[in-house]
Amino acid sequence: MESDAKNSVGIIQTQTVRVVEADAPLRLACGKTLGPIDVAYETYGTLNDQKDNAVLICHALSGNAHVAGCNSPDDRKPGWWDIMVGPGKPIDTSKYFVICSNILGGCSGTTGPSDVNPATGRPYGLEFPIITIEDTVHVQKRLLDKLAVPHLLAVVGGSMGGMQVLQWAVSYPEFMDAALCIASTTRLNAQSIAFDAVGRNAILGDPYFNDGQYHGQTNPARGLSIARMIGHITYLSEESMRFKFGRTLRGSTDYTYDFNSEFSVETYLDYQGQAFVERFDANSYLYITKAMDYFDIVREYGSLRQAFAATRCRFLIASFSSDWLFTPRQSEDIMEALGAEGKDVTYCNIYSSYGHDAFLLEAATLGRLIAGFIDSTWHRVRTAQRVRGEKEKTAAGIKPKLPDHAKRVRVDYELIDSLIEPNSRVLDLGCGDGELLMRLVQDKNVCGEGVELDEDLVIHCVQRGLSVIHRDIERGLEMYPNETFDYAVLSQTIQTLRDPQRVLLELHRVARRVIVSFPNFAHWRCRAQLMFKGIAPQTRQLPFRWYNSPNIHFLSLKDYDHFCAELDIHIEQKIPLGKISTLPLRILPNFFAPQAIYVTSKYHAS
Amino acid sequence: MESDAKNSVGIIQTQTVRVVEADAPLRLACGKTLGPIDVAYETYGTLNDQKDNAVLICHALSGNAHVAGCNSPDDRKPGWWDIMVGPGKPIDTSKYFVICSNILGGCSGTTGPSDVNPATGRPYGLEFPIITIEDTVHVQKRLLDKLAVPHLLAVVGGSMGGMQVLQWAVSYPEFMDAALCIASTTRLNAQSIAFDAVGRNAILGDPYFNDGQYHGQTNPARGLSIARMIGHITYLSEESMRFKFGRTLRGSTDYTYDFNSEFSVETYLDYQGQAFVERFDANSYLYITKAMDYFDIVREYGSLRQAFAATRCRFLIASFSSDWLFTPRQSEDIMEALGAEGKDVTYCNIYSSYGHDAFLLEAATLGRLIAGFIDSTWHRVRTAQRVRGEKEKTAAGIKPKLPDHAKRVRVDYELIDSLIEPNSRVLDLGCGDGELLMRLVQDKNVCGEGVELDEDLVIHCVQRGLSVIHRDIERGLEMYPNETFDYAVLSQTIQTLRDPQRVLLELHRVARRVIVSFPNFAHWRCRAQLMFKGIAPQTRQLPFRWYNSPNIHFLSLKDYDHFCAELDIHIEQKIPLGKISTLPLRILPNFFAPQAIYVTSKYHAS
Repeated sequence: MESDAKNSVGIIQTQTVRVVEADAPLRLACGKTLGPIDVAYETYGTLNDQKDNAVLICHALSGNAHVAGCNSPDDRKPGWWDIMVGPGKPIDTSKYFVICSNILGGCSGTTGPSDVNPATGRPYGLEFPIITIEDTVHVQKRLLDKLAVPHLLAVVGGSMGGMQVLQWAVSYPEFMDAALCIASTTRLNAQSIAFDAVGRNAILGDPYFNDGQYHGQTNPARGLSIARMIGHITYLSEESMRFKFGRTLRGSTDYTYDFNSEFSVETYLDYQGQAFVERFDANSYLYITKAMDYFDIVREYGSLRQAFAATRCRFLIASFSSDWLFTPRQSEDIMEALGAEGKDVTYCNIYSSYGHDAFLLEAATLGRLIAGFIDSTWHRVRTAQRVRGEKEKTAAGIKPKLPDHAKRVRVDYELIDSLIEPNSRVLDLGCGDGELLMRLVQDKNVCGEGVELDEDLVIHCVQRGLSVIHRDIERGLEMYPNETFDYAVLSQTIQTLRDPQRVLLELHRVARRVIVSFPNFAHWRCRAQLMFKGIAPQTRQLPFRWYNSPNIHFLSLKDYDHFCAELDIHIEQKIPLGKISTLPLRILPNFFAPQAIYVTSKYHAS
Repeated sequence: MESDAKNSVGIIQTQTVRVVEADAPLRLACGKTLGPIDVAYETYGTLNDQKDNAVLICHALSGNAHVAGCNSPDDRKPGWWDIMVGPGKPIDTSKYFVICSNILGGCSGTTGPSDVNPATGRPYGLEFPIITIEDTVHVQKRLLDKLAVPHLLAVVGGSMGGMQVLQWAVSYPEFMDAALCIASTTRLNAQSIAFDAVGRNAILGDPYFNDGQYHGQTNPARGLSIARMIGHITYLSEESMRFKFGRTLRGSTDYTYDFNSEFSVETYLDYQGQAFVERFDANSYLYITKAMDYFDIVREYGSLRQAFAATRCRFLIASFSSDWLFTPRQSEDIMEALGAEGKDVTYCNIYSSYGHDAFLLEAATLGRLIAGFIDSTWHRVRTAQRVRGEKEKTAAGIKPKLPDHAKRVRVDYELIDSLIEPNSRVLDLGCGDGELLMRLVQDKNVCGEGVELDEDLVIHCVQRGLSVIHRDIERGLEMYPNETFDYAVLSQTIQTLRDPQRVLLELHRVARRVIVSFPNFAHWRCRAQLMFKGIAPQTRQLPFRWYNSPNIHFLSLKDYDHFCAELDIHIEQKIPLGKISTLPLRILPNFFAPQAIYVTSKYHAS
């Protein structure tokens, strides 16, 4: 992503507005009240007449309202997410009205613990009340009221910003069309709390901390810089540190045999600690990390599912493969709870070696995902489209370019299409580029969801406006309640699964009908090759050699018949298929049909 | 492992001996000299007359000489590795003479930075010279000289103790028969250096540190406890912290909305920090972590392979699956370098959720591994056995019990045995419980090594005295130079591999001859079942159903012939086999033989 003038929002000023007056203070989660509250914010782009193009960005621990552009012509660095926000950028300020505010308790313009306590006339210090993520979201809502923004197209945030996104969706379910939660979690795990606690310990124990009353005196710089160093280690991955620093020494090829910083990684941390001390406030660090530790949607609502029950928006949950602070598993928990509640959720685990910091660095991949999700949401809003899926062209009018390896042509798609009843809900396992789902959306107005293992294909589906889960289907579909779908489709995939039995039973649990297509291993060409040539068969439908085939289980129509009988699965339709025609093949199908489609359902006790 | 009186070494006193005199100081790696040096140590068991039963244990960062038993009847806790050391325990003090000493720079009796500097009459503090792992090993050698121990049966250590083990093997290659390096590394990665650096930063920045001259005054307790807390987080895994603490609050069900420690994990860290301050010295913490940061065998010798080139002992390298401080990958690096140098190396990655601390906790699994390795080494020493493998009975005279799932009966073993020339070097891929290797050791006096994926089977092999690598063979065998072996054996496994081609080419690289056996998919029963029944074949050799088979590629003798031709592999012998007889089957083998054995070699350009 270029940061040149053309794609920049340009020079932008941080503004401040009072959202809570002193005489009508805000009641906080801790039970105390706080007022007045001022909020620092920036906006980019223009709110349109329909007021349906507003996007709120929530920042992370050390961020602020200054997302994009520069505050002055001399600024050395643009805003913290300039790669993502600007005209023509993923969050496109030529289309959307973008807002970002400094959070409550912060130190970049919004009321925080180092501001003057009107009751005492000196800085709050530790007299500032403990704030929570929920409190910060309520303050953001006040800001939007002040700005006369009645509704959000999307609320977006990474890390602690993602916590705010989730809180927004839960606290104000009607207020947004889409929630984009990136590299975040519904609650910190013990390890993350531990790192935060050690950092706070270093600040609180700094001899200069003085109960937070260090203003105008020496700052607790050592404590804050130690906290920042610990944080920084958790933002990078072991791999990225190895690549960036390894064991290189700074300034010398020989060990100095003293306790000065000499490894590059040491001097880097020293620098990060020092730079942070110059721009951030120790009190704010205490309050914001505590808010993160306290954030716990499960605790607040009894369970994740209950928390999400009332949400109404679409969700994009994204994680990064090497993020060990807010792990992919934690994002999957969010996705699974939303899926279980029948919410419209898309999940992508982006491959990256950058660790947690990837949400600030993986501009290309994350940008495509975010843009695809926001643009398609806006297109839905504009066309009031009910179904989960767009017309062939995306909102921007561009058909996304398909990666080469994704170009699949499947003779069975047409037939599967014909088997599905209009307006039904369909789960497509191994949905690829979403071709079949798009067809079904267009032809049958289905409500479709996909599951796909390939990251590129997942993003491709998102760009098309489809809801898709990035997952290996063999890992299970526990998140879906029984009979969530009318149809589950497993097209040309069963022969590549490690455990077809488990997957098939799971499909019959989550869907009323299961449509499976596969190549017939007992086709006469296969039989002949094994019988007369004595070799592993190789045909148009099974085109691989024995040693390089992705197909790891081989089955015939008869095998599948037996399989269904054993698993107590009822075969509603069995459609042996020819090579190219979609007309069923009726004579000696297990001998003549190179492939087949089955529609099955499970006998239930009732 | 019980710690009852019967298996305890009982009451034991730490002793101290001067190993370096003031007038003949030791020259250290940093160039400075140090003297006098006293060493605190404990011994258990008795050195035998042959003096061939001595085992040296090296401790980790916060350890000391007190490994086992109690120092007094009132001791609340036994020594730090009491689970591993005692009569009848894995390191059996009824058989072996066990020694452990506090390391140089420590604070438990061996000369360190808080001892009095004879030159100034006050504690060394930061005037103590920087010490290295190599220095500590030289001091340990002086101790053994004092104790008149001329040779070690084994040197054992975990974490930083493992670093000392590697240094021992490199610095004194003739001095030991076995080196057991557990949960360790040849050099810290950037992430570990970073954690150490932040900890040292906290100590050095503590207002009470005073250049290490805090003795008799307030200690830099806050700094040391922060360092310890950071360390502690890295010793546990995320999973074990989640399991042990989760997000539970201590003492209350409600948040306290202040900055006191309230999550269980916080109070645990507070406790660990406090307890550490009471028993450990801040100066020693600085010097020992610096020694770990500096440890770098690659830097010292140019490459790992060069470092290990002169080593003579057997190596056991063990790691723990959830250890993110000293990762399994780092242990594999050691194993691969040793393998590349043709050294006798065994590797096991023990499944554990305990993280790095597992080396102190996984008594059962690690105990079996350590005992198996030391006992079989001793048996070799006693019998002066040249080959890599024991007779059917282990040193202890007990045939290890085989786990049920490992009981494989293979008709092809007998024939493979007959194909291998005496005294050759054999690599058995997927060696299972080591049955074939044991046979080959006994019948043919081969020098055998195994590769096996299953942890239990790996340990079983170790108990039998075999050298085995715990690894998925599809991950590659890069560590072995070309033609390391006379034979590579792949018995009944090729059909279960994801990528048979890559594996087979790799086998032909590392071995002069490759012996492969597999079930014949074109056996007449298979052909008949597909031809006449139209189902996926199921036979005695291919007993699984299509959906639950571990076999994921199917091949016939003819397929394998073609395969070899394509890969430019020369078939030296092709032995079609009957069901039970080991006599070759000569008539229409691709039709009548249910299985086959091939002996192949690769045509080389030369």
